[in-house]
Amino acid sequence: MTGTLYGLGIGPGDPDLITLKALKRLQSAPVLAYPALEDGDSLARAIIAPHLTAPKIEIAIRIPMTIERAPAQAAYDNAAVEISRYLEKGDDVAVLCEGDPFFYGSFMYLFGRVAEKYKVEVVPGVSSLTACATSLQSPLSARNDILTVLPAPLSSDILRARLQEADSAAIMKVGRHFARVRDVIFDLGLENNARYIERATMENEKIMALADVPKNAAPYFSMILIHKRGQAWK
Amino acid sequence: MTGTLYGLGIGPGDPDLITLKALKRLQSAPVLAYPALEDGDSLARAIIAPHLTAPKIEIAIRIPMTIERAPAQAAYDNAAVEISRYLEKGDDVAVLCEGDPFFYGSFMYLFGRVAEKYKVEVVPGVSSLTACATSLQSPLSARNDILTVLPAPLSSDILRARLQEADSAAIMKVGRHFARVRDVIFDLGLENNARYIERATMENEKIMALADVPKNAAPYFSMILIHKRGQAWK
Repeated sequence: MTGTLYGLGIGPGDPDLITLKALKRLQSAPVLAYPALEDGDSLARAIIAPHLTAPKIEIAIRIPMTIERAPAQAAYDNAAVEISRYLEKGDDVAVLCEGDPFFYGSFMYLFGRVAEKYKVEVVPGVSSLTACATSLQSPLSARNDILTVLPAPLSSDILRARLQEADSAAIMKVGRHFARVRDVIFDLGLENNARYIERATMENEKIMALADVPKNAAPYFSMILIHKRGQAWK
Repeated sequence: MTGTLYGLGIGPGDPDLITLKALKRLQSAPVLAYPALEDGDSLARAIIAPHLTAPKIEIAIRIPMTIERAPAQAAYDNAAVEISRYLEKGDDVAVLCEGDPFFYGSFMYLFGRVAEKYKVEVVPGVSSLTACATSLQSPLSARNDILTVLPAPLSSDILRARLQEADSAAIMKVGRHFARVRDVIFDLGLENNARYIERATMENEKIMALADVPKNAAPYFSMILIHKRGQAWK
């Protein structure tokens, strides 16, 4: 009997926003894997730290933050080999995924490498999308709203075209694209319908109007939410 | 001291997909409110039933399923009055919300009626959106995909135009709109990129190709996911 790979959505940052299901799998799996900075900490590991009740074998998947994709692909190749070794022995491996594993998550890279050969079970999690709406105390989408989710690395032309026709929109992974995205939103006159939020539900969560966000200071885990109709519940 | 209104995302259906945070609030609040059919059960109440450890005061918010909005609005007006009575006395009230409270949820109608006068805390939940992707074992969106969320009641022309430009799309609240939505998807030649799913993560979950779904049989809690690029992780 080979082991099972569990892709666990651990939620957006508040350790209490993990589901009971993910918590059970986390606590029962003997091996834990998680993405980590090349020479630093793992945010995912830090989020679930309060829930670790017993020592585990731990695999830090160190992802080089390069523009080219080959170094990251190589890191996932190596991680898949290492994880498969435990699965082959019959050990379950829990992979920690910030937010939800299948919502813009890096888990899919492991999934694609492991799912054809081993059993994989994915546990959905609270995504940053709805966590940000909660922190802003404002419904993300309602009734027949069309919600558009846009990754910030897209070109300004694409962002502009999609924002023009959106009812509500979430711009993900803002990070180093902040200044460019902000300019698009101001060009469209949507700045008063937009809010910037970083590290939603974490202790260092910040919410700001776009004009107040310092240039070049947005972390990767930042998002801009836009509601064209203003407060959806009125 | 008045009480707090808790809007609790209880997840998509599997009772274990509730978060620790929602579970704590659920168990500590003396009053529980939830949407229910006019003369029947409450799905939300059924989902959390395994977690009820002590009797509570319960408020079933019975929503008439009419096309006109006035009867439902009146039901929320009445519920807000009843809930406010407990808040005024200093009792916390937990409102159960399937999925996430701010993601196409009916919680916003209570929120709009109560938030100006009382303290409201919303706990985000696992949405049906990512739960469906998990059940389909297929990433919902990846890398720089644009994800478009479309409520099925929108006109066929709008659905067609938005699906034409989507990378991946989720069509929510399919229910009685199924046959019309299916026809739009076939017209666009996207039927092999689409999957139908109902009651994701519940015991009676069903996944089907569009051609296999019986006409007029889709429940309200059904969704169609479409990935134009096929398997996103390859």
